[in-house]
Amino acid sequence: MSDLRIAVAGLGTVGAGTLKLLRDQADLLAARCGRSLRVVAVSARDRAKDRGIDLGNVHWYDDPVAMARDADAEVVVELIGGSDGAAKALCETALDARRHVVTANKALLAHHGTALAKKAEAIGVTLSFEAAVAGGVPIVKALREGLAANRITRLYGILNGTSNYILTGMRDSRRPFLKVLQQAQKLGYAEADPSFDVDGIDAAHKLAILTSVAFGIEVDFAGVYTEGIRHVSPLDIEYAEELGYRIKLLAIARRTEIGIEQRVHPCMVRDSAAIAVVDGVTNAVVAEGDFTGSTVYEGPGAGAGPTASAVVADLIDLARGRRIPTFGVPATALTPAVASPMERHRGPYYIRLMVVDRPGVIADIAAALRDENVSMESMLQRGRAPNEAVPVVLTTHIAEEAAMNRALQRISRLDAVIERPRMIRIEDL
Amino acid sequence: MSDLRIAVAGLGTVGAGTLKLLRDQADLLAARCGRSLRVVAVSARDRAKDRGIDLGNVHWYDDPVAMARDADAEVVVELIGGSDGAAKALCETALDARRHVVTANKALLAHHGTALAKKAEAIGVTLSFEAAVAGGVPIVKALREGLAANRITRLYGILNGTSNYILTGMRDSRRPFLKVLQQAQKLGYAEADPSFDVDGIDAAHKLAILTSVAFGIEVDFAGVYTEGIRHVSPLDIEYAEELGYRIKLLAIARRTEIGIEQRVHPCMVRDSAAIAVVDGVTNAVVAEGDFTGSTVYEGPGAGAGPTASAVVADLIDLARGRRIPTFGVPATALTPAVASPMERHRGPYYIRLMVVDRPGVIADIAAALRDENVSMESMLQRGRAPNEAVPVVLTTHIAEEAAMNRALQRISRLDAVIERPRMIRIEDL
Repeated sequence: MSDLRIAVAGLGTVGAGTLKLLRDQADLLAARCGRSLRVVAVSARDRAKDRGIDLGNVHWYDDPVAMARDADAEVVVELIGGSDGAAKALCETALDARRHVVTANKALLAHHGTALAKKAEAIGVTLSFEAAVAGGVPIVKALREGLAANRITRLYGILNGTSNYILTGMRDSRRPFLKVLQQAQKLGYAEADPSFDVDGIDAAHKLAILTSVAFGIEVDFAGVYTEGIRHVSPLDIEYAEELGYRIKLLAIARRTEIGIEQRVHPCMVRDSAAIAVVDGVTNAVVAEGDFTGSTVYEGPGAGAGPTASAVVADLIDLARGRRIPTFGVPATALTPAVASPMERHRGPYYIRLMVVDRPGVIADIAAALRDENVSMESMLQRGRAPNEAVPVVLTTHIAEEAAMNRALQRISRLDAVIERPRMIRIEDL
Repeated sequence: MSDLRIAVAGLGTVGAGTLKLLRDQADLLAARCGRSLRVVAVSARDRAKDRGIDLGNVHWYDDPVAMARDADAEVVVELIGGSDGAAKALCETALDARRHVVTANKALLAHHGTALAKKAEAIGVTLSFEAAVAGGVPIVKALREGLAANRITRLYGILNGTSNYILTGMRDSRRPFLKVLQQAQKLGYAEADPSFDVDGIDAAHKLAILTSVAFGIEVDFAGVYTEGIRHVSPLDIEYAEELGYRIKLLAIARRTEIGIEQRVHPCMVRDSAAIAVVDGVTNAVVAEGDFTGSTVYEGPGAGAGPTASAVVADLIDLARGRRIPTFGVPATALTPAVASPMERHRGPYYIRLMVVDRPGVIADIAAALRDENVSMESMLQRGRAPNEAVPVVLTTHIAEEAAMNRALQRISRLDAVIERPRMIRIEDL
């Protein structure tokens, strides 16, 4: 069979890694595909840069959109990144030119996934994105094909390696967020501007994509409640351990009576849960299916090698002629997303207050919770320091988020409560 | 598109579960496949048995081979089991009749996988077997497609839930193998004749299949070194904990300079390893790829729901027209297996001896090891009991299996050594 002709846009870490993989594994890939995977065109910013790959036989384009339109390729691989701009223009152009698109771009798919899928399917080409979520872990394939006989009831995971690295570092070193972030930046595990990672946005992008595949709904990034890890303090980590929990930034999607709940926020999870021991930059996803039960997928969530492995897995499927609707069902059959709002979330909570240690304080706090029908499970005040500030930690039984918020507002107005209350949701996994 | 017509042979737990899944998820499956999955024929031993499924519209065959030949079906699902007999005859008959075959039968594939794959591919139909390994975990798809861009360097896992359940029970209860086995039998986690599970044969069947997919070699069950868990004692479990290990029955395949090493045996693994905390009937597989690094797949390894989920995942691929060579490359291109023999295995070892506590014993043992170039890493003799039997535990640095065996033979001949030495391989994961 003839070669699969590939054009690659973006030659950063992942792009260069993909070209290296295609070069180093050429024989293996040919055996597995029954044909060769051949890069015929590339586009990147700097032509002169040494990437350790011979680009002599490859057509160079300064303009990626021009490449998407003109290159003699069946597939365009988009590794530029960003939800709009060149990445979006080049994907649309490639699809219009009846070329398949393989992308690692989670921001693009989170914002425009449904529209791009509809476009691709209307034109009769494939849009694939294994590399957009959890790096080298074939989680998109697992959900879309391996678990396709199941109705997924809940899906959750650690989808951002940087945040997990920082939380792991905070636990190991007992140092505060900013110190550990700086160290992560020095080691290259965090960007100079870390907000996409530590504010949960990157994980929310990925969750919106997985939710669409798992639940058959249109991609609904706007429906993801997103909260990052900046407010997690070493004190919370210490209390978590005392209570038998670990703090993880989880991305969670589940079906409720209202619709689909999607949320990214720090969670307290039992230290015996499989996901509690996933440390460092590792990613992990747990999918709960009505027939298969709970299955776990874990591995390196980023990096040149793992991401290239996922990009090329999509290319192999294309080379073999294996086609599937973008999100598992035809994009026109995806259900419009009905978000289950965060105020309606129900679960147990961990609350940490700084209070002036004097008689009656706990009674006032307990009254605020009672008036909102929030039932306390445990209360912890270590040591005594009359008339000085001490931490008080509470856990609650299952309560509604809206009620919890009202109770916390009332508590924060108490004279004896001298800092903004800290709240971390407890997740029963 | 027209319905996918399916014939099912064998209506035990998995067969009945598969029919229930196809009934309960009919709408979901139709949406995901673009066509319906319809059971048109079944065959089982007892027609009168109530399986909780309406078989009114389904053609009943007393003879599964006749069904494979005559039924008006594109796919025959084989859920009878056993490496030969009816299962093999019906698969061959179905392939000869140009029908696809989906099977959960690991014994059949371990013994006849290459021949059946060659037959299927020569005829132009598909033989698929996601359900044969690790139940509801889509590990075959992950290896054959998700990781297809990688050269797999090592693969290992917990592939037998019964053995893992027993080892977990032995650790938790400190009771000996036979007691825990009996309890597992009462609870339905072990068969009346448990030898396939506890002697490692079932895990070896599954390993031989995964090895073929991962390394592109012909299925080589005969090349799997197989050792079960009957000889693991509570004392070994105790020492393992003291040394920072857990004992797991692992199935391991890796490429060596000689060929492919395949082995199933109890291992000591560091208690911090991901696989060390996989307890009970859960299965887990770790695949190490040259680009993607180490990825982990975990979930329920057996049971009606998980296994049915895997069977139907294969049916969905067929319904969608997604085809792939049986073991990832055409069966005629599989490399004949060159087994790396167990005598050439190299690794560290744990040795437990019962010795009479008298001067010079340790020196004799040490000399036997030294003469075979086996270097001791640690030695542990708790307490003293002059002239009585005491356990002595040794761990070694990396040594060759053949040398280790020679040293153990010599040690077992020492007067002061009063029981057969126990050896458990340490696995560096």
